[in-house]
Amino acid sequence: MLDFTFYNPTKVLFGKDTIGQIGSQIAQLGYKRVLLMAGGGSIKTNGVYETVSESLRLADISVTEFWGIQPNPTLERVRDAIDDALAEEVDAILAVGGGSVIDSAKAVAAGVYFDDVWTAFEAAKPIEQALPIFVVLTLSATGSEANGTAVVTHEGENKKWPIKGPALSPKVSIIDPSVQKHLPSRQTVNGAVDTLSHLMEFYFLGTTQESTIATNESLMRTVIGCMDVLYADPLNYTARSNLAWSSTLALNGVAGASLRGGDWCTHLLEHAISALFTTVAHAEGLAVMFPAWIRASWEQNPDQFLRWARNVWHADTVEQGIQNMQAHYEKWGAPITLGDIGIKSRDIPALVENVMQRGEPGNLWKLSARDVEAVFRLAL
Amino acid sequence: MLDFTFYNPTKVLFGKDTIGQIGSQIAQLGYKRVLLMAGGGSIKTNGVYETVSESLRLADISVTEFWGIQPNPTLERVRDAIDDALAEEVDAILAVGGGSVIDSAKAVAAGVYFDDVWTAFEAAKPIEQALPIFVVLTLSATGSEANGTAVVTHEGENKKWPIKGPALSPKVSIIDPSVQKHLPSRQTVNGAVDTLSHLMEFYFLGTTQESTIATNESLMRTVIGCMDVLYADPLNYTARSNLAWSSTLALNGVAGASLRGGDWCTHLLEHAISALFTTVAHAEGLAVMFPAWIRASWEQNPDQFLRWARNVWHADTVEQGIQNMQAHYEKWGAPITLGDIGIKSRDIPALVENVMQRGEPGNLWKLSARDVEAVFRLAL
Repeated sequence: MLDFTFYNPTKVLFGKDTIGQIGSQIAQLGYKRVLLMAGGGSIKTNGVYETVSESLRLADISVTEFWGIQPNPTLERVRDAIDDALAEEVDAILAVGGGSVIDSAKAVAAGVYFDDVWTAFEAAKPIEQALPIFVVLTLSATGSEANGTAVVTHEGENKKWPIKGPALSPKVSIIDPSVQKHLPSRQTVNGAVDTLSHLMEFYFLGTTQESTIATNESLMRTVIGCMDVLYADPLNYTARSNLAWSSTLALNGVAGASLRGGDWCTHLLEHAISALFTTVAHAEGLAVMFPAWIRASWEQNPDQFLRWARNVWHADTVEQGIQNMQAHYEKWGAPITLGDIGIKSRDIPALVENVMQRGEPGNLWKLSARDVEAVFRLAL
Repeated sequence: MLDFTFYNPTKVLFGKDTIGQIGSQIAQLGYKRVLLMAGGGSIKTNGVYETVSESLRLADISVTEFWGIQPNPTLERVRDAIDDALAEEVDAILAVGGGSVIDSAKAVAAGVYFDDVWTAFEAAKPIEQALPIFVVLTLSATGSEANGTAVVTHEGENKKWPIKGPALSPKVSIIDPSVQKHLPSRQTVNGAVDTLSHLMEFYFLGTTQESTIATNESLMRTVIGCMDVLYADPLNYTARSNLAWSSTLALNGVAGASLRGGDWCTHLLEHAISALFTTVAHAEGLAVMFPAWIRASWEQNPDQFLRWARNVWHADTVEQGIQNMQAHYEKWGAPITLGDIGIKSRDIPALVENVMQRGEPGNLWKLSARDVEAVFRLAL
């Protein structure tokens, strides 16, 4: 195994009817004034907002609400929320939502300590100071509920970039899978694809880390099994809860231990897509790009890609593994080609340029601009 | 999945040449005076003591040393160490060793806040306050380096009992698997058996927690594979490091999430053995007792035991699974029967009495005194 650090200080409360504990969890740690950040209002129809508000009221915590965080969250909204956090002198940030809300909350938590929060994204240095972050998760996908990373889009510059650091790990995250049962099918599928993509970003770097590789592989099989149940039976709590927990484990350090921090090339390719085509969901871009990246990459570490094909997709070749994966994606309703998400051959030069802004992507192997273009073309 | 809490705040530094970071890790968190606890002196022959001492010196941390912690660590030595910790006004405890040293360090860290530390064991309430604990691990086995549990033996009363609580999780644990390469074979085997036993204590409660079950199962297979390499080739770093990390994952919350806190009956049976027969290593007692407990228990959750036999031991029946496990244990050099560890039929009544002191053991099913006796007899 290669050396690594495993550090995951987030306390996760997982299960039915756990959301009502959010107030006491925040109060126990001594915080009294929170900025509650949320999305477009779905938490008002599924009961989550009411439960959270009541819990905060009972714990005597004052609340400022900030609504309207969208998928592919923007720097602009983060800046507005930072203004509110400073004006209201909050001492903690509470994200109630999915990855976009959590990532925005992290950017706000760090941003109150910067003159301009975007300088933190440009500096690409570990975030050491931030307001404490609490999470009530309503969509399992990004794993952001249990790690120290956030991704935000600067629309003016078409940049979708990350910040990372120990201060960004939530103090407490509450995951009640039962509130996800009424999600639109597309969001459940996106969550599963996102989770599989996170697992793959680590997995393909595998060499001697059997303990991590075997764990990662078992999580991929679990996600596929759960999704095969859920696309037909979205109310199945066993599948819903196992998908949710797998999604957290995919990106809390367990599934990536000793795997060189992961590859992340495919995520960088996708970030260009959702930076330029803001209506494309992150996971839709990943569903389209991962098969293309695998086709272009498998000869860099052939034994590991073949192991993936065999152990995850019951295939005898990498190509057959990819096809089995795409057959599942198609069955679940995920897109398969760039065309499926409205991207054409003529859009590729702009995508390549966006990707190359931060240099050659990839860790398993570094892709030149020409390589990146080739991968996009494989996804057409 | 059943509800659970996952909370593992220990930062783990894993890999070759990581031990020299211990001083800076302690200093970074602001501590200046440590009680260094250790065993019988093996760390003076493998270079660990020298590396730790130099690292502490460079970080300007003052050190009081406390030596002589033995396997099945005793309350008496813990009390002596508490006296030293108080007299020297240390602000942190540093365990350099295996599970016995770490568990003793945890008892000392909590014990400075009690008039008599044994009252904490008797109260069986969560430990909320303790001095900060740091660990340099030299033997992967108990998982104590990344959880909040400690087990200590009160020799006067023949009680081997635990304390638990969030304050007992180490702040930082350093795991350099390379220092384990010169361990006596018996200790490596004991570590692997201990790890498998921890995984099994959770596994057999499995029902709907596919994400955890599949992860747990993959860790069992990894441990077996590593041990099959190491018993013939103890210098193999790949096997050594994967065994070490599997051992940590077995008991840091990952392999037990949603599994009702585990069963722990077999551990309680073993604690009676090592309380009354103090020369028996904990893992040796487990190696002998687990097959007996499985034979007595598998009909309580037959599908899960059969899954274990199939997926872990490539067997078609539970009995065949047990026999395959015992064949591996025997090959590695672990004991198989109570006779192998010097315990006879006439000793069983005292063992049963010791077990029953704290009531009927078990979580999958509760064992009466008669059941406990039957399990011991199955192990003869």
